[in-house]
Amino acid sequence: MSPEDITRRLEIDALYADYAHCLDNDELGAWPEFFTEDCAYRITSAENFEAGLPLGIVYATSKAMLVDRVMALRKANIYEPQRYRHLIGALKIGAAEDGVVPVVANLIVVRTMQDGEMMLFAAGRSVDRLVRQGEGWKFAKKDIVLDSRQIDTLLSIPL
Amino acid sequence: MSPEDITRRLEIDALYADYAHCLDNDELGAWPEFFTEDCAYRITSAENFEAGLPLGIVYATSKAMLVDRVMALRKANIYEPQRYRHLIGALKIGAAEDGVVPVVANLIVVRTMQDGEMMLFAAGRSVDRLVRQGEGWKFAKKDIVLDSRQIDTLLSIPL
Amino acid sequence: MSPEDITRRLEIDALYADYAHCLDNDELGAWPEFFTEDCAYRITSAENFEAGLPLGIVYATSKAMLVDRVMALRKANIYEPQRYRHLIGALKIGAAEDGVVPVVANLIVVRTMQDGEMMLFAAGRSVDRLVRQGEGWKFAKKDIVLDSRQIDTLLSIPL
Repeated sequence: MSPEDITRRLEIDALYADYAHCLDNDELGAWPEFFTEDCAYRITSAENFEAGLPLGIVYATSKAMLVDRVMALRKANIYEPQRYRHLIGALKIGAAEDGVVPVVANLIVVRTMQDGEMMLFAAGRSVDRLVRQGEGWKFAKKDIVLDSRQIDTLLSIPL
Repeated sequence: MSPEDITRRLEIDALYADYAHCLDNDELGAWPEFFTEDCAYRITSAENFEAGLPLGIVYATSKAMLVDRVMALRKANIYEPQRYRHLIGALKIGAAEDGVVPVVANLIVVRTMQDGEMMLFAAGRSVDRLVRQGEGWKFAKKDIVLDSRQIDTLLSIPL
Repeated sequence: MSPEDITRRLEIDALYADYAHCLDNDELGAWPEFFTEDCAYRITSAENFEAGLPLGIVYATSKAMLVDRVMALRKANIYEPQRYRHLIGALKIGAAEDGVVPVVANLIVVRTMQDGEMMLFAAGRSVDRLVRQGEGWKFAKKDIVLDSRQIDTLLSIPL
């Protein structure tokens, strides 16, 4: 493994950690900053993903749409007492092609309700394409592919 | 940490990521390729493991047995609607001895049923011995040691 | 990323793996060794943490207090049939300041009861400060910040 490979791997590992903490700390204003201007972001089901269906439950084709989404969420949710905790693992980092690095990661999110009850909220994988921009890496594409089809409750927050 | 140590650690980290995705993508035909020809693979309970009992719920002493097992699974399960998601973490990588690297990892598997219900399917650790072969690392030994004793439902899939 | 940064990151990653296995193997006698002599250790709720309240459900201001705690636990719990499994991820490793490295990690603990039932036991983050001592890293400060407020059951074991 070359020094460049080692650094790339550790930088990408750190990126996913930052991403998890951004969401879990409910710092949604910073969330779009993880993406490129013309990013594609989607939350979809494994069935739709495997069937090649383009649309998802959440679908954005630019960072501006992510910003809009955050603002809409902020207006809609006056008070959100639940907390989310992401575990992201099994980062499978592919070879760069034309500066784009494909990454697939496993994802489990635990939700804790106001009364303290914990539940599995989401399980799936994140199928991503990363590009280097300036000092760090950005998501040019992120497909959150959920194992579960009970996705109505997922509308409210980014994953 | 020497450059060799760093590379070894990151290669092993990547191996576990590949292993998780192989299983979660239901690519069972590729699963035996993670093992050496004369590997020992076992799924056992923590109680049996700590008592030094040799047998497990699943027990194989060669890669050929793993291949047989995959074929049997493929015949038995016409249709498997559930999905599995592995989170593997806390990789404790020991010092190599005679080319064998001991690794212990924590393991949680979430199962999502066809109706979308998610549940904890397995929790435990993977007690492994890795050897370098050609371009990568293989499991010479893998003991999946489950915390739970409810192991009847685990017969159907590799972990 | 400098060779020093790379090594630091991988050493800290290994520290958290060792910490998880220490607890999950119920090797509580070794647990205080992860801390400095004058460490601060706390288990608290996210609400208390965010409100800046100093006290927690568990609170220690030295390694000696952690040793005392382990001895008290050993006396109180004649037999503990349940098992715990830690998944620690999303390590956000900050820049060292005066030799102190801030780290935040996500944390999920699964408990398996004697009858085999698995449950989510804890979810949250670990807000830590590490220092280098001799051959390795020690926790000078560890705040386990739990998302859940159902913390009465957490009194019995360290996290």
